[in-house]
Amino acid sequence: MQERSCALVVIGNEILSGKIHDTNTYFAARELRAIGVALKRIAVVPDEIDAIAQEVRYCSQRFDFVITSGGVGPTHDDITIAGVAAALDRPVVIHPQLEALIHQHFDGKPNKAGLKMAEVPDGAVLVEGGPMIFPTVQAENIYMLPGIPQLFEGKLAAIKLRFATDPYFVRAIYTSAGEGKIAGILDACMERFPKLLLGSYPKIGNAEYRVKLTLESKDREYVESAFRYLLELLPKDVILRTE
Amino acid sequence: MQERSCALVVIGNEILSGKIHDTNTYFAARELRAIGVALKRIAVVPDEIDAIAQEVRYCSQRFDFVITSGGVGPTHDDITIAGVAAALDRPVVIHPQLEALIHQHFDGKPNKAGLKMAEVPDGAVLVEGGPMIFPTVQAENIYMLPGIPQLFEGKLAAIKLRFATDPYFVRAIYTSAGEGKIAGILDACMERFPKLLLGSYPKIGNAEYRVKLTLESKDREYVESAFRYLLELLPKDVILRTE
Repeated sequence: MQERSCALVVIGNEILSGKIHDTNTYFAARELRAIGVALKRIAVVPDEIDAIAQEVRYCSQRFDFVITSGGVGPTHDDITIAGVAAALDRPVVIHPQLEALIHQHFDGKPNKAGLKMAEVPDGAVLVEGGPMIFPTVQAENIYMLPGIPQLFEGKLAAIKLRFATDPYFVRAIYTSAGEGKIAGILDACMERFPKLLLGSYPKIGNAEYRVKLTLESKDREYVESAFRYLLELLPKDVILRTE
Repeated sequence: MQERSCALVVIGNEILSGKIHDTNTYFAARELRAIGVALKRIAVVPDEIDAIAQEVRYCSQRFDFVITSGGVGPTHDDITIAGVAAALDRPVVIHPQLEALIHQHFDGKPNKAGLKMAEVPDGAVLVEGGPMIFPTVQAENIYMLPGIPQLFEGKLAAIKLRFATDPYFVRAIYTSAGEGKIAGILDACMERFPKLLLGSYPKIGNAEYRVKLTLESKDREYVESAFRYLLELLPKDVILRTE
């Protein structure tokens, strides 16, 4: 199966203002990677319908699917549904199944805030699974997840297999050499293995290593060959350990 | 002085693939907030010149300034300079002052990787300050910072005062009530104080509180009035503490 691409759109003034430290993107990046999905873009936008709509439209047209985080609760600043509806040029409507769920939850007397949670972009479908009885709303290739980390993580874990393709194979080399010293060797490796995803990540003030190199490919043999080649090129005394 | 707007563009496959947990955006969000700068957008894009150029161009045209993180080292995947140059439709050139610095650093015998770090978008200027002798490269309203957290933080701290305007005044209320219960009260507060930035952040599995409310404005009197009004509206028994 061909690799699928994905974008994450995080909605939240609280992230942009530094009041909340977003952890959903890091969680999602690892989960998606593990199931062979290429996360191609992360965007954090403010609680503004136009900003949400513009970013979601851009991502929805370019990537196989889009996951949004945040802005789906009952309060005045929860406008993700309206933003996604605008991205798709559709009205916001009440979903009868969500309305029934909310009536049930409030013993038949839901308040205005509760009923807001029955709103969806017209044509949306519901995806069951995850930590709440409340399902995930999906419109076209856009999945609207809650921003609270426990809910986001549970919802993503519940629905992620519908995105799964084939995984990456990864190797790593930890070196005691600085990037400047080994850059030429990395270039030589890339010339021989042009399809390799080769990462070089320096760490400062870290007694354990100076640069972590990661080698990746969906072809296991390819990454193993590149791994052996790079180990040959690198001076023996700078190789600390491998993974 | 009018509030200035800013965008952060993070360059890095390592973030998108979940191999590295980005902390620079959270650091920058808090630093910028503290000096009264409105962070309006965060984007994480892959190590691809077109993706970098497109995002940087978008942000450079819409916001007062743009800070990039990552992709400015000596290795093959460091292409932020080329991406920013493309965003501005300019060539990449060697900056004589950087070239001299690098010659000095390598005792007059720099390797190819080292010399790569003398490259800048044509017309760029150098901004001194921060943890390394190496200055920050600025082209138009775009500042290119290193991605390694210690360097990013030191560089931002060194140059941030050039962005400073006036700060926000913030108040917070921690409540034991769920969002559904208090949403109507928040709406009433917003009707009376339409210019208030009112945030509502639920926390799950947290014995300390259920929802943190934040009230913000650049007008200290306005936020204090709204704070008192909201405290009057909320049931006394759900208010746990205030800040």
